[in-house]
Amino acid sequence: MKLMEQKILREGQILPGDILKVGSFLNQNIDTDLLGEMGREIARLYDGAGVTKILTIEASGIAIAAAAGLSMGVPVLFAKKHRTSNVDGDVYVTKVHSFTHNEDYAVVVSRDYLLPSDRVLLVDDFLANGNALRGLIDLCNQADAELVGVAIAIEKCFSGAGDQMRAEGVRIDSLAQIESMTENGIVFRS
Amino acid sequence: MKLMEQKILREGQILPGDILKVGSFLNQNIDTDLLGEMGREIARLYDGAGVTKILTIEASGIAIAAAAGLSMGVPVLFAKKHRTSNVDGDVYVTKVHSFTHNEDYAVVVSRDYLLPSDRVLLVDDFLANGNALRGLIDLCNQADAELVGVAIAIEKCFSGAGDQMRAEGVRIDSLAQIESMTENGIVFRS
Repeated sequence: MKLMEQKILREGQILPGDILKVGSFLNQNIDTDLLGEMGREIARLYDGAGVTKILTIEASGIAIAAAAGLSMGVPVLFAKKHRTSNVDGDVYVTKVHSFTHNEDYAVVVSRDYLLPSDRVLLVDDFLANGNALRGLIDLCNQADAELVGVAIAIEKCFSGAGDQMRAEGVRIDSLAQIESMTENGIVFRS
Repeated sequence: MKLMEQKILREGQILPGDILKVGSFLNQNIDTDLLGEMGREIARLYDGAGVTKILTIEASGIAIAAAAGLSMGVPVLFAKKHRTSNVDGDVYVTKVHSFTHNEDYAVVVSRDYLLPSDRVLLVDDFLANGNALRGLIDLCNQADAELVGVAIAIEKCFSGAGDQMRAEGVRIDSLAQIESMTENGIVFRS
């Protein structure tokens, strides 16, 4: 998606540790013109795919998932993060390791809202090591829901996780794919 | 907003401790038809008010703020919750007490994204004791931004906080106002 690539080139900041800061338009301050375009693009990519539910993870996936859900006319479900895996109630739980904070956390979704009849599109802001995504896929598997695909705003291709998951048969559509990111600049996958 | 009241009556569950569970359509699973209507209604209410930024708080305010931002064509900023007030960087911080979890947490927003020139609309899912809202207002004050108003999905009027803040001169628009909530049912303010 050209608009996303342009925005990354114009406003993204590369920080130590392969971090791309996009807080000015994507995951803290949100450019709603771009957000609307993202929602329409995801709807176009999954037109006719029979998606019944969008699943994302709090917090920075929610706005993107909401934009896609509004464009596609399907409900949006967000999984919650907990500090402990000690979670009450009738829920599916999976464990995710965060490299950013170097800790494990539990990702939780109510059994009432993720059903075996669901055809699920996963949505998130970043795909880097794929840990959060594998957690969401695990939740779908626990619910016997069908995974239709994954829509990501920005994929860090150099981490390899996205291509690994594609090789495993997961459909992944990333609106911007970063092949490399150095002090010489950002190169997108063409 | 009639659609919101109908949805609450049909799907809301009253739990002990004056909790209204609306996870099936508002704050875990999100009905995007309703969400789109909410966004358009907030846009209608604040048409011509010169709002330049919507400010919300993670996580359950984000989808509503995104819908409003998409309808109004203004950016959405979300404040983040931290366990400690020990937050690095160039940020505004305020302390909020959560009655649900009986703990204080820090609410943080980057100074880069909340400006003295901003005319801010606050958006959140619930207004009960008003603590989160007062925190967001404090962040606006710290930034010398102008508070235009507050749009809330569901106000628990019986808590008194919304009316107290109105008496202090804050404009608050709630899409559903619950006057009382007992085993005999829910009564909306007319």
